[in-house]
Amino acid sequence: ESANEFRSQRDSLIQRLQETEVRNQTLEAQLTDLEQRLESSQLEREAFRKSLRSLLELLDSKIFELNELRDALAKLLEGS
Amino acid sequence: ESANEFRSQRDSLIQRLQETEVRNQTLEAQLTDLEQRLESSQLEREAFRKSLRSLLELLDSKIFELNELRDALAKLLEGS
Amino acid sequence: ESANEFRSQRDSLIQRLQETEVRNQTLEAQLTDLEQRLESSQLEREAFRKSLRSLLELLDSKIFELNELRDALAKLLEGS
Amino acid sequence: ESANEFRSQRDSLIQRLQETEVRNQTLEAQLTDLEQRLESSQLEREAFRKSLRSLLELLDSKIFELNELRDALAKLLEGS
Repeated sequence: ESANEFRSQRDSLIQRLQETEVRNQTLEAQLTDLEQRLESSQLEREAFRKSLRSLLELLDSKIFELNELRDALAKLLEGS
Repeated sequence: ESANEFRSQRDSLIQRLQETEVRNQTLEAQLTDLEQRLESSQLEREAFRKSLRSLLELLDSKIFELNELRDALAKLLEGS
Repeated sequence: ESANEFRSQRDSLIQRLQETEVRNQTLEAQLTDLEQRLESSQLEREAFRKSLRSLLELLDSKIFELNELRDALAKLLEGS
Repeated sequence: ESANEFRSQRDSLIQRLQETEVRNQTLEAQLTDLEQRLESSQLEREAFRKSLRSLLELLDSKIFELNELRDALAKLLEGS
Protein backbone atom coordinates (compact mmCIF):
# COMPACT_ATOMS: atom_id res chain seq x y z
CA GLU A 1 0.00 0.00 0.00
CA SER A 2 1.05 3.49 -0.62
CA ALA A 3 1.75 6.13 2.01
CA ASN A 4 -1.36 7.96 0.83
CA GLU A 5 -3.58 5.01 1.53
CA PHE A 6 -2.15 4.57 5.06
CA ARG A 7 -2.64 8.26 5.75
CA SER A 8 -6.19 8.12 4.48
CA GLN A 9 -6.93 5.09 6.73
CA ARG A 10 -5.27 6.89 9.66
CA ASP A 11 -7.39 10.03 9.15
CA SER A 12 -10.56 8.00 8.88
CA LEU A 13 -9.65 6.11 12.08
CA ILE A 14 -8.96 9.37 13.94
CA GLN A 15 -12.43 10.52 12.92
CA ARG A 16 -14.12 7.27 14.14
CA LEU A 17 -12.14 7.27 17.38
CA GLN A 18 -13.27 10.79 18.17
CA GLU A 19 -16.89 9.90 17.48
CA THR A 20 -16.63 6.80 19.66
CA GLU A 21 -15.05 8.77 22.51
CA VAL A 22 -17.79 11.38 22.33
CA ARG A 23 -20.39 8.61 22.46
CA ASN A 24 -18.43 7.18 25.41
CA GLN A 25 -18.60 10.42 27.34
CA THR A 26 -22.31 10.69 26.64
CA LEU A 27 -22.85 7.16 27.95
CA GLU A 28 -20.78 7.83 31.07
CA ALA A 29 -22.77 10.98 31.77
CA GLN A 30 -26.06 9.07 31.34
CA LEU A 31 -24.75 6.32 33.62
CA THR A 32 -23.75 8.80 36.32
CA ASP A 33 -27.14 10.46 36.04
CA LEU A 34 -29.00 7.15 36.28
CA GLU A 35 -26.89 6.01 39.24
CA GLN A 36 -27.72 9.24 41.07
CA ARG A 37 -31.41 8.89 40.29
CA LEU A 38 -31.38 5.28 41.49
CA GLU A 39 -29.58 6.21 44.69
CA SER A 40 -31.85 9.16 45.36
CA SER A 41 -34.86 6.93 44.62
CA GLN A 42 -33.58 4.39 47.16
CA LEU A 43 -32.99 7.09 49.78
CA GLU A 44 -36.53 8.40 49.19
CA ARG A 45 -37.86 4.86 49.47
CA GLU A 46 -36.03 4.29 52.75
CA ALA A 47 -37.37 7.58 54.16
CA PHE A 48 -40.87 6.60 53.00
CA ARG A 49 -40.65 3.19 54.64
CA LYS A 50 -39.30 4.71 57.85
CA SER A 51 -42.31 7.07 58.02
CA LEU A 52 -44.57 4.13 57.27
CA ARG A 53 -43.04 2.09 60.07
CA SER A 54 -43.71 4.99 62.48
CA LEU A 55 -47.36 5.02 61.32
CA LEU A 56 -47.54 1.24 61.83
CA GLU A 57 -46.30 1.64 65.40
CA LEU A 58 -48.82 4.44 65.94
CA LEU A 59 -51.59 2.18 64.59
CA ASP A 60 -50.41 -0.56 66.97
CA SER A 61 -50.73 1.77 69.95
CA LYS A 62 -54.20 2.98 68.80
CA ILE A 63 -55.42 -0.64 68.47
CA PHE A 64 -53.95 -1.37 71.92
CA GLU A 65 -55.85 1.61 73.39
CA LEU A 66 -59.10 0.59 71.64
CA ASN A 67 -58.65 -2.86 73.21
CA GLU A 68 -58.27 -1.29 76.66
CA LEU A 69 -61.46 0.73 76.03
CA ARG A 70 -63.19 -2.49 74.92
CA ASP A 71 -62.10 -4.28 78.11
CA ALA A 72 -63.29 -1.35 80.26
CA LEU A 73 -66.68 -1.52 78.51
CA ALA A 74 -66.91 -5.31 78.98
CA LYS A 75 -65.98 -4.96 82.67
CA LEU A 76 -68.64 -2.25 83.11
CA LEU A 77 -71.23 -4.57 81.55
CA GLU A 78 -70.25 -7.57 83.67
CA GLY A 79 -69.83 -5.70 86.96
CA SER A 80 -73.34 -4.26 87.08
CA GLU B 1 6.10 11.18 6.86
CA SER B 2 6.96 7.75 5.53
CA ALA B 3 4.50 4.95 4.69
CA ASN B 4 5.80 3.03 7.73
CA GLU B 5 4.96 5.82 10.10
CA PHE B 6 1.40 6.15 8.71
CA ARG B 7 0.93 2.35 9.03
CA SER B 8 2.22 2.38 12.56
CA GLN B 9 -0.19 5.22 13.46
CA ARG B 10 -3.04 3.34 11.73
CA ASP B 11 -2.34 0.12 13.66
CA SER B 12 -2.17 1.98 16.95
CA LEU B 13 -5.46 3.74 16.15
CA ILE B 14 -7.14 0.39 15.29
CA GLN B 15 -6.05 -0.86 18.71
CA ARG B 16 -7.39 2.22 20.56
CA LEU B 17 -10.62 2.15 18.57
CA GLN B 18 -11.22 -1.49 19.52
CA GLU B 19 -10.58 -0.74 23.20
CA THR B 20 -12.92 2.25 23.10
CA GLU B 21 -15.64 0.23 21.39
CA VAL B 22 -15.33 -2.52 24.01
CA ARG B 23 -15.62 0.11 26.74
CA ASN B 24 -18.62 1.49 24.84
CA GLN B 25 -20.37 -1.88 24.83
CA THR B 26 -19.70 -2.31 28.52
CA LEU B 27 -21.17 1.12 29.25
CA GLU B 28 -24.25 0.39 27.09
CA ALA B 29 -24.77 -2.91 28.91
CA GLN B 30 -24.50 -1.16 32.31
CA LEU B 31 -26.90 1.53 31.10
CA THR B 32 -29.45 -1.05 29.91
CA ASP B 33 -29.13 -2.90 33.25
CA LEU B 34 -29.58 0.30 35.27
CA GLU B 35 -32.56 1.39 33.16
CA GLN B 36 -34.21 -1.97 33.78
CA ARG B 37 -33.52 -1.78 37.52
CA LEU B 38 -34.93 1.76 37.64
CA GLU B 39 -38.02 0.73 35.69
CA SER B 40 -38.59 -2.38 37.81
CA SER B 41 -38.03 -0.26 40.94
CA GLN B 42 -40.67 2.21 39.72
CA LEU B 43 -43.14 -0.59 38.92
CA GLU B 44 -42.54 -2.03 42.40
CA ARG B 45 -43.06 1.39 43.88
CA GLU B 46 -46.31 1.89 41.97
CA ALA B 47 -47.59 -1.53 43.10
CA PHE B 48 -46.57 -0.68 46.68
CA ARG B 49 -48.39 2.65 46.58
CA LYS B 50 -51.46 1.04 45.04
CA SER B 51 -51.60 -1.45 47.91
CA LEU B 52 -51.08 1.39 50.36
CA ARG B 53 -53.94 3.37 48.82
CA SER B 54 -56.19 0.33 49.26
CA LEU B 55 -55.18 0.16 52.93
CA LEU B 56 -55.88 3.89 53.29
CA GLU B 57 -59.39 3.37 51.88
CA LEU B 58 -59.86 0.43 54.25
CA LEU B 59 -58.74 2.61 57.17
CA ASP B 60 -61.22 5.28 56.04
CA SER B 61 -64.08 2.79 56.12
CA LYS B 62 -63.01 1.45 59.55
CA ILE B 63 -62.91 5.00 60.97
CA PHE B 64 -66.34 5.63 59.42
CA GLU B 65 -67.71 2.48 61.10
CA LEU B 66 -66.15 3.41 64.45
CA ASN B 67 -67.88 6.79 64.12
CA GLU B 68 -71.22 5.06 63.51
CA LEU B 69 -70.60 2.93 66.61
CA ARG B 70 -69.73 6.09 68.55
CA ASP B 71 -72.98 7.75 67.43
CA ALA B 72 -75.01 4.67 68.39
CA LEU B 73 -73.42 4.74 71.85
CA ALA B 74 -74.11 8.48 72.25
CA LYS B 75 -77.73 7.99 71.15
CA LEU B 76 -78.11 5.11 73.65
CA LEU B 77 -76.80 7.35 76.43
CA GLU B 78 -79.02 10.30 75.49
CA GLY B 79 -82.20 8.28 74.88
CA SER B 80 -82.40 6.67 78.27
CA GLU C 1 -118.59 0.35 132.39
CA SER C 2 -121.85 1.55 131.02
CA ALA C 3 -123.35 0.74 127.63
CA ASN C 4 -122.78 4.36 126.61
CA GLU C 5 -119.09 4.11 127.30
CA PHE C 6 -118.75 0.89 125.28
CA ARG C 7 -120.67 2.45 122.41
CA SER C 8 -118.50 5.56 122.48
CA GLN C 9 -115.33 3.35 122.40
CA ARG C 10 -116.85 1.28 119.55
CA ASP C 11 -117.61 4.42 117.49
CA SER C 12 -114.14 5.82 118.07
CA LEU C 13 -112.62 2.45 117.02
CA ILE C 14 -114.74 2.36 113.84
CA GLN C 15 -113.37 5.80 113.02
CA ARG C 16 -109.73 4.76 113.64
CA LEU C 17 -110.21 1.51 111.70
CA GLN C 18 -111.52 3.40 108.69
CA GLU C 19 -108.62 5.81 108.80
CA THR C 20 -106.14 2.95 109.09
CA GLU C 21 -107.74 1.11 106.21
CA VAL C 22 -107.60 4.22 104.03
CA ARG C 23 -103.91 4.60 104.92
CA ASN C 24 -103.54 0.90 104.06
CA GLN C 25 -105.02 1.36 100.60
CA THR C 26 -102.81 4.37 99.98
CA LEU C 27 -99.72 2.35 100.97
CA GLU C 28 -100.76 -0.57 98.77
CA ALA C 29 -101.29 1.77 95.81
CA GLN C 30 -97.84 3.34 96.41
CA LEU C 31 -96.32 -0.14 96.69
CA THR C 32 -97.92 -1.27 93.42
CA ASP C 33 -96.74 1.92 91.74
CA LEU C 34 -93.18 1.52 93.02
CA GLU C 35 -93.08 -2.18 92.02
CA GLN C 36 -94.15 -1.25 88.52
CA ARG C 37 -91.55 1.52 88.31
CA LEU C 38 -88.86 -0.86 89.57
CA GLU C 39 -89.89 -3.54 87.07
CA SER C 40 -90.06 -1.10 84.18
CA SER C 41 -86.69 0.34 85.26
CA GLN C 42 -85.22 -3.18 85.22
CA LEU C 43 -86.70 -3.92 81.79
CA GLU C 44 -85.24 -0.63 80.49
CA ARG C 45 -81.92 -1.53 82.05
CA GLU C 46 -81.94 -4.95 80.43
CA ALA C 47 -82.75 -3.44 77.02
CA PHE C 48 -80.00 -0.86 77.55
CA ARG C 49 -77.46 -3.55 78.44
CA LYS C 50 -78.51 -5.69 75.48
CA SER C 51 -77.89 -2.73 73.12
CA LEU C 52 -74.58 -2.12 74.85
CA ARG C 53 -73.55 -5.75 74.41
CA SER C 54 -74.31 -5.43 70.67
CA LEU C 55 -72.10 -2.33 70.53
CA LEU C 56 -69.35 -4.22 72.38
CA GLU C 57 -69.50 -7.03 69.80
CA LEU C 58 -69.41 -4.42 67.03
CA LEU C 59 -66.36 -2.81 68.67
CA ASP C 60 -64.73 -6.26 68.85
CA SER C 61 -65.23 -6.79 65.11
CA LYS C 62 -63.90 -3.28 64.30
CA ILE C 63 -60.77 -3.92 66.41
CA PHE C 64 -60.37 -7.29 64.66
CA GLU C 65 -60.60 -5.58 61.26
CA LEU C 66 -58.12 -2.85 62.29
CA ASN C 67 -55.74 -5.66 63.33
CA GLU C 68 -56.11 -7.27 59.89
CA LEU C 69 -55.35 -3.89 58.28
CA ARG C 70 -52.32 -3.54 60.58
CA ASP C 71 -51.06 -7.00 59.57
CA ALA C 72 -51.54 -6.18 55.86
CA LEU C 73 -49.52 -2.97 56.33
CA ALA C 74 -46.75 -4.83 58.22
CA LYS C 75 -46.63 -7.52 55.47
CA LEU C 76 -46.42 -4.81 52.79
CA LEU C 77 -43.48 -3.21 54.62
CA GLU C 78 -41.64 -6.52 55.13
CA GLY C 79 -42.31 -7.93 51.66
CA SER C 80 -40.73 -5.06 49.74
CA GLU D 1 -128.39 -2.82 122.17
CA SER D 2 -127.05 -4.11 125.43
CA ALA D 3 -123.78 -3.20 127.04
CA ASN D 4 -122.54 -6.74 126.28
CA GLU D 5 -123.14 -6.32 122.62
CA PHE D 6 -121.27 -2.97 122.54
CA ARG D 7 -118.36 -4.53 124.43
CA SER D 8 -118.26 -7.44 122.07
CA GLN D 9 -118.23 -5.10 119.07
CA ARG D 10 -115.52 -3.01 120.73
CA ASP D 11 -113.31 -6.06 121.36
CA SER D 12 -113.75 -7.28 117.81
CA LEU D 13 -112.84 -3.82 116.50
CA ILE D 14 -109.72 -3.68 118.69
CA GLN D 15 -108.68 -7.01 117.16
CA ARG D 16 -109.25 -5.82 113.57
CA LEU D 17 -107.50 -2.51 114.24
CA GLN D 18 -104.42 -4.31 115.56
CA GLU D 19 -104.34 -6.57 112.53
CA THR D 20 -104.73 -3.61 110.19
CA GLU D 21 -101.98 -1.71 111.97
CA VAL D 22 -99.62 -4.71 111.71
CA ARG D 23 -100.40 -4.95 107.98
CA ASN D 24 -99.76 -1.20 107.80
CA GLN D 25 -96.32 -1.54 109.37
CA THR D 26 -95.48 -4.38 106.99
CA LEU D 27 -96.51 -2.25 104.00
CA GLU D 28 -94.50 0.71 105.27
CA ALA D 29 -91.44 -1.48 105.72
CA GLN D 30 -91.85 -2.88 102.17
CA LEU D 31 -92.31 0.62 100.83
CA THR D 32 -89.16 1.88 102.57
CA ASP D 33 -87.26 -1.15 101.26
CA LEU D 34 -88.50 -0.60 97.68
CA GLU D 35 -87.73 3.12 97.82
CA GLN D 36 -84.18 2.34 98.94
CA ARG D 37 -83.76 -0.24 96.18
CA LEU D 38 -85.10 2.20 93.59
CA GLU D 39 -82.82 4.96 94.84
CA SER D 40 -79.77 2.69 94.94
CA SER D 41 -80.70 1.40 91.48
CA GLN D 42 -80.83 4.97 90.19
CA LEU D 43 -77.50 5.84 91.82
CA GLU D 44 -76.00 2.71 90.23
CA ARG D 45 -77.48 3.70 86.92
CA GLU D 46 -76.08 7.21 87.16
CA ALA D 47 -72.61 5.84 88.03
CA PHE D 48 -72.91 3.41 85.12
CA ARG D 49 -73.85 6.18 82.69
CA LYS D 50 -71.06 8.38 83.99
CA SER D 51 -68.52 5.61 83.31
CA LEU D 52 -70.08 5.08 79.89
CA ARG D 53 -69.80 8.78 79.09
CA SER D 54 -66.09 8.63 79.99
CA LEU D 55 -65.69 5.67 77.61
CA LEU D 56 -67.54 7.60 74.89
CA GLU D 57 -65.12 10.52 75.31
CA LEU D 58 -62.20 8.08 75.19
CA LEU D 59 -63.64 6.56 71.99
CA ASP D 60 -63.94 10.08 70.55
CA SER D 61 -60.27 10.77 71.21
CA LYS D 62 -59.22 7.39 69.75
CA ILE D 63 -61.23 8.09 66.56
CA PHE D 64 -59.65 11.56 66.42
CA GLU D 65 -56.17 10.02 66.70
CA LEU D 66 -56.96 7.38 64.04
CA ASN D 67 -58.04 10.26 61.77
CA GLU D 68 -54.73 12.02 62.36
CA LEU D 69 -52.90 8.79 61.50
CA ARG D 70 -55.06 8.48 58.37
CA ASP D 71 -54.20 12.04 57.31
CA ALA D 72 -50.47 11.39 57.90
CA LEU D 73 -50.70 8.28 55.70
CA ALA D 74 -52.57 10.18 52.95
CA LYS D 75 -50.00 12.99 53.08
CA LEU D 76 -47.15 10.45 52.83
CA LEU D 77 -48.79 8.91 49.75
CA GLU D 78 -49.41 12.26 48.07
CA GLY D 79 -46.04 13.79 48.88
CA SER D 80 -43.96 11.12 47.22
